[in-house]
Amino acid sequence: MKNLLVELGDRSYPIYIGSGLLQQPELLQKHISSKQVLVVTNSTVAPLYLATVVNNLAGHTVAQVILPDGEQYKTLEQVNTIFDVLLAEKFSRNATLIALGGGVIGDMGGFAAACYQRGIAFLQIPTTLLAQVDSSVGGKTGVNHPLGKNMIGAFYQPQCVIADADVLDTLNDRELSAGLAEVIKYGLIRDLAFFEWLEANIGRLAARDKTALAYAIEQSCLNKAAIVAEDETETGVRATLNLGHTFGHAIETGMGYGTYLHGEAVAIGTCQAADLSRRKGWLSEADVARIIALFTAANLPVTPPAQLASERFVELMTVDKKNVDGKIRLILLQRIGAATLPDYVDQALLEETLNHYGR
Amino acid sequence: MKNLLVELGDRSYPIYIGSGLLQQPELLQKHISSKQVLVVTNSTVAPLYLATVVNNLAGHTVAQVILPDGEQYKTLEQVNTIFDVLLAEKFSRNATLIALGGGVIGDMGGFAAACYQRGIAFLQIPTTLLAQVDSSVGGKTGVNHPLGKNMIGAFYQPQCVIADADVLDTLNDRELSAGLAEVIKYGLIRDLAFFEWLEANIGRLAARDKTALAYAIEQSCLNKAAIVAEDETETGVRATLNLGHTFGHAIETGMGYGTYLHGEAVAIGTCQAADLSRRKGWLSEADVARIIALFTAANLPVTPPAQLASERFVELMTVDKKNVDGKIRLILLQRIGAATLPDYVDQALLEETLNHYGR
Repeated sequence: MKNLLVELGDRSYPIYIGSGLLQQPELLQKHISSKQVLVVTNSTVAPLYLATVVNNLAGHTVAQVILPDGEQYKTLEQVNTIFDVLLAEKFSRNATLIALGGGVIGDMGGFAAACYQRGIAFLQIPTTLLAQVDSSVGGKTGVNHPLGKNMIGAFYQPQCVIADADVLDTLNDRELSAGLAEVIKYGLIRDLAFFEWLEANIGRLAARDKTALAYAIEQSCLNKAAIVAEDETETGVRATLNLGHTFGHAIETGMGYGTYLHGEAVAIGTCQAADLSRRKGWLSEADVARIIALFTAANLPVTPPAQLASERFVELMTVDKKNVDGKIRLILLQRIGAATLPDYVDQALLEETLNHYGR
Repeated sequence: MKNLLVELGDRSYPIYIGSGLLQQPELLQKHISSKQVLVVTNSTVAPLYLATVVNNLAGHTVAQVILPDGEQYKTLEQVNTIFDVLLAEKFSRNATLIALGGGVIGDMGGFAAACYQRGIAFLQIPTTLLAQVDSSVGGKTGVNHPLGKNMIGAFYQPQCVIADADVLDTLNDRELSAGLAEVIKYGLIRDLAFFEWLEANIGRLAARDKTALAYAIEQSCLNKAAIVAEDETETGVRATLNLGHTFGHAIETGMGYGTYLHGEAVAIGTCQAADLSRRKGWLSEADVARIIALFTAANLPVTPPAQLASERFVELMTVDKKNVDGKIRLILLQRIGAATLPDYVDQALLEETLNHYGR
């Protein structure tokens, strides 16, 4: 088992990475100081792992909330159903909330923990590759709004994260690929050596080689933890984690939450960001081809949906947390392994990129 | 004009107290660094002060949200209407939200600011005595849930608070008295000299003597700021600010939000807490009589509603943020000017207090 520490002063917390971690009740127990524990999960994960987690909580008063599965349910209404249970069960401010699921469950469970009685303890057991490498590190919690993704939320750190590689056995191929999109992102934005390792090992990852997966999870968490430690509330370098996300969020919102998985939308968006970076003169055509080839080898889409017109893209991208006073800002690549956030986007180049796909 | 600083490290902020402050645009302007500004207010305050505040924002892009007036509207749904406007107007993360109104508007506006894009800048212009002396100091924001008051929220500090004593001219008598309930509370929990000043000057306050009101606001804010500086997130002494509030919240929730004003419920609850403190052997009968006399002189109710049975009281009090693992905890008075939070409540004494009023 690897034990990484996310360094955030008095909000620091460990990420445990390894196999068989859900079979170790003491990992969970040592981070829970309350009698009352609420487990929040979804209808896909519950039949697989809920009983195991509840069994690990002997001696506690355990309640559970099973939400519907999917990004389209990442709403304030669903978070409210968590509050309903916490209040109906008379949970007090020293209670603990465990989020057992993918990124959607982690984001909603974390936001509910941040807001219930102005903050209760929170643990994460991510059950998708995407959640293990991305949403479980860094304390971003929240929900979507019909007009924009992740627009309502809080920065709120967990007590610990337990990333058990064994739970990836039950992940379907599409979800596994979606997770690889964020893994590839870490290489692109700050770690050329990891990007090259991914090019050499993408076949092993897609074939679920456990050793390769554990290494990819660890390197991803290390990269993200280093960025978050430097910039917890995204006033600077943390924004580079959003490579491909402004395009990607536009695709998710524009096509309706749930049509594309988050990682799929990010894969497409990153290819668009790479195209725009080439038009800025930063990436070569060969660089862009390498990026597209790696996403393709991870079984990810690399072309935006034809239905989404360029004008609609721009409209959707105008609502983004990186924007300043209504102006679009995008993370771009100066080279493979180095991301940047320019002060503004050349409107003409952006339109060239949006029109590049024959829409 | 008085200028108090709430000392919270890099979250410190000033409270400006005085007359004519809404006529000084520079007070507001120097705390706003963004182009986009949203003013959140309610249907009672809007016709009185919204135009003045908007006029003070020349040069900014100003949007507004006018919510219905009343504690019964302090809900997640109403906060969502604030998000709707922020997103429809494409407000970015560097936008500023101004809460113009009483405690309900301050709590909802502050919570919306805390959650929108995980936190935007926030200013408060409290327009009731209650909001000026209580909810504008200390960063508690949030909304009610049908099963409990202030159960969903965040700790979130404003950039500044502008408490203009002139706005109290338009406050009705009932709201003025409700504010005095919290003013009296500060004397009871930690400031005997202020309590005695209130006994001598309650007539001037009820008659809206401006000099007396300004002094009462200042002393209240000083007391609250000192407590908040010591314990921002209520892990200790801050809980004493909740004197009378556990009983009071039970009355508000049990009778339906809006039946009693918050300050009215707190006045009753504080008399109940005083009664229980006497049964503990801490207060004398004469102390309790002094407390009841002062609330009565402030035109506040001192007896719980007959409709609320003791069993229902206990049930409602079981959901409270001070409780630990489902056990009721209450702030009591060791003497006038000194509050305490015992580890547990003697159930028998609590029932004596609840039954004391012939219900």
